[in-house]
Amino acid sequence: MSGVNVTRTSNLEFNTPFIVTHQQAEIIRALRRRGVISRTDIARMTGWSRAKITTEVSVLIDKGFLKEVGDGTSEGGRRPRLLNINNELGYVIGVDIGATSIDMALADVCGRVMQRQSVPADVRNSPEVVLGHCSQMILDMALAQGTSPEKIYAIGVGVPGPVEFARGTLVAPPLMPEWENFPIRQFFRTTFPSAIIVVDNDVNIMAIGELRAGQGVGLDDFIYVKIGTGIGAGIVSNGKIHRGANGCAGDIGHICVDKQGTMCRCGNIGCLEAMAAGPAIAERAMVAARTGESPILARRLETNGSFLRPEDVGAAFREGDRVACEIIQSSGRMIGEVLAGLVSFFNPSHIFVGGGVTNLGNQLLSSIRQTVLQRSLPLATRHLIIDYSNMGTEAGVTGAIFLTFDYLFYVSD
Amino acid sequence: MSGVNVTRTSNLEFNTPFIVTHQQAEIIRALRRRGVISRTDIARMTGWSRAKITTEVSVLIDKGFLKEVGDGTSEGGRRPRLLNINNELGYVIGVDIGATSIDMALADVCGRVMQRQSVPADVRNSPEVVLGHCSQMILDMALAQGTSPEKIYAIGVGVPGPVEFARGTLVAPPLMPEWENFPIRQFFRTTFPSAIIVVDNDVNIMAIGELRAGQGVGLDDFIYVKIGTGIGAGIVSNGKIHRGANGCAGDIGHICVDKQGTMCRCGNIGCLEAMAAGPAIAERAMVAARTGESPILARRLETNGSFLRPEDVGAAFREGDRVACEIIQSSGRMIGEVLAGLVSFFNPSHIFVGGGVTNLGNQLLSSIRQTVLQRSLPLATRHLIIDYSNMGTEAGVTGAIFLTFDYLFYVSD
Repeated sequence: MSGVNVTRTSNLEFNTPFIVTHQQAEIIRALRRRGVISRTDIARMTGWSRAKITTEVSVLIDKGFLKEVGDGTSEGGRRPRLLNINNELGYVIGVDIGATSIDMALADVCGRVMQRQSVPADVRNSPEVVLGHCSQMILDMALAQGTSPEKIYAIGVGVPGPVEFARGTLVAPPLMPEWENFPIRQFFRTTFPSAIIVVDNDVNIMAIGELRAGQGVGLDDFIYVKIGTGIGAGIVSNGKIHRGANGCAGDIGHICVDKQGTMCRCGNIGCLEAMAAGPAIAERAMVAARTGESPILARRLETNGSFLRPEDVGAAFREGDRVACEIIQSSGRMIGEVLAGLVSFFNPSHIFVGGGVTNLGNQLLSSIRQTVLQRSLPLATRHLIIDYSNMGTEAGVTGAIFLTFDYLFYVSD
Repeated sequence: MSGVNVTRTSNLEFNTPFIVTHQQAEIIRALRRRGVISRTDIARMTGWSRAKITTEVSVLIDKGFLKEVGDGTSEGGRRPRLLNINNELGYVIGVDIGATSIDMALADVCGRVMQRQSVPADVRNSPEVVLGHCSQMILDMALAQGTSPEKIYAIGVGVPGPVEFARGTLVAPPLMPEWENFPIRQFFRTTFPSAIIVVDNDVNIMAIGELRAGQGVGLDDFIYVKIGTGIGAGIVSNGKIHRGANGCAGDIGHICVDKQGTMCRCGNIGCLEAMAAGPAIAERAMVAARTGESPILARRLETNGSFLRPEDVGAAFREGDRVACEIIQSSGRMIGEVLAGLVSFFNPSHIFVGGGVTNLGNQLLSSIRQTVLQRSLPLATRHLIIDYSNMGTEAGVTGAIFLTFDYLFYVSD
């Protein structure tokens, strides 16, 4: 597991203690890209002289940023010493704040996850409450690790709303209006003074998780689609996350799929989210249960009490319920229609689908695929792969950890 | 006018005679980014020692790649000598092959355009005929410049179809099936042996023209939309052109706008192109003329003989024709609906509209804007600018020239 970039400029106002020169940054970048490497590998990648590499690597080892981690394979002659980032340098936290939960992981600075935590939470609470809870969880993890808060050097945070990335704040977040402009970075810094804090949209960190440690490793152009209570996308273009001009790229839940459709909470008619996300699926199932159109769903409604969830529709489908099948297919078709347009526009090699609704099973995926194939041009779908993400909730926290690696070492010379 | 990148790897099989080291490439990259710079500027940008910069610059001057072009402003002490890429090194050609025309320009290696040419052409002819015509035009330009074909060091070519960029060939081009897999690069190389040849989609080179020398300079995320006989988009993400996995990104003409619409030549129903591009506008005007719904259009039809073009609709609108106005608005609304979805997905800061249909005037732009504002989320449209490109046919040839600058100097060390 390894990141790729090292920051050059400080428009993100980071105050990492890990200061390196341009040349040293290039070595760290190579390490992030390749994992463990030898001095000979560095020579090949940079074109620098042996003497220069020896000097720069020594400085990095003296600073405690790098360490030797064993011997590589000989290419004739002495076996080369292998280098990696010093995993004992300290810790990095990945936080994925969802609408109803907080997922968190603690990793070393090489990206090896050492602890995980998941708790229910309600993002409609004030940022002080939710982030205070996060801080406590991080402190607990540090304690369990036998380390102090000062050894937490980075916190990557995913939040379910549009983020102005350079400032690390939410902008007009529909789910959590109280969070608008809240200084998340400063909040964490009071408890974790050594940490750089990087804030991004929740679907972006999932896409980063796929890009750096999942099925997206090595891919240049893909889309990660999260389907749950809402619908959003994380976009990777030329191997980099595309956040857009205002940090709200990927907000595909409000693309219109039916001009005669139902009203969305955004005020428009027939938005994808209002028509095809979890709540719409559950709502349609409730109607089918109440009207007696589906006896299987009716029975589930009775068992649950007064509600149905998307997973009930999935279960009914597996029991052979025709109505549940139609509900899933209809949702998949609408999602597929929007994705077909995005495939024509963006020409991704892969679309990874994640989020809560993915437990509806293969019928959803199959309807999405059929619609995309039918509606996009052959060239764009010739090699297109549409599949469920297999990272589950890991995608978000992993992405949040890797996101910070781009900023952990700061270039100044 | 200046490019930004210098190629590092040769997956494009370029054989430029301009070989540089990594360090020299960094100097050239700085020059492309900034235009004219001093040795002190280079020191600031690279962090290298004075001695190293003196050495590397001397090598580049000795090779004839750079030259001193005068004195800069003193910051106390001697006035610094300014450097630029040696404009006498040779020439670069930009070619924009359209469905019905060839636009071409010859520039020096700094990007200063010295000659232009435009001729009618028919891209449905064989590639040998069309490209043979191009070669002849380039030879004529070289002759007029008093130089030999060997001094043409780069040819950037835009073609109206999906391009597999790494190979420089068209893939399943609907307008020009005969061109599929035709080796454009090899064709030009027989006549211009010193030239690297870079082939890209026509709308991509327009977007590159805007990015490097138009309203797009300094922008990270924008979309260039060409509306003519077809409709296509060029996409810039994180300051770089986004070509997609198969080189067909931006193919927005086949996104569905009306499930009950007319059949498109691609076989699907209600594609944007079939419903809103130039031919659809002309077709609707012909109906209004023949049925007598618009006397103004009927008169124009009579004057023209047996056809109406989009520009006739623009002229009728300016004469106050209500039907012409409705036709333009309807087209603008459909284009706006597709762009609204792309704005939600991509969150561009700007959309530049170019191509033949732009001479329909502000009514088209106004309908597009209204629809986008109505259908996209407020955050994505808060600062969004939708405007006509003001580069006209320059965008394509300029972009084709700048495209080659990324590959003109080849890094090997």
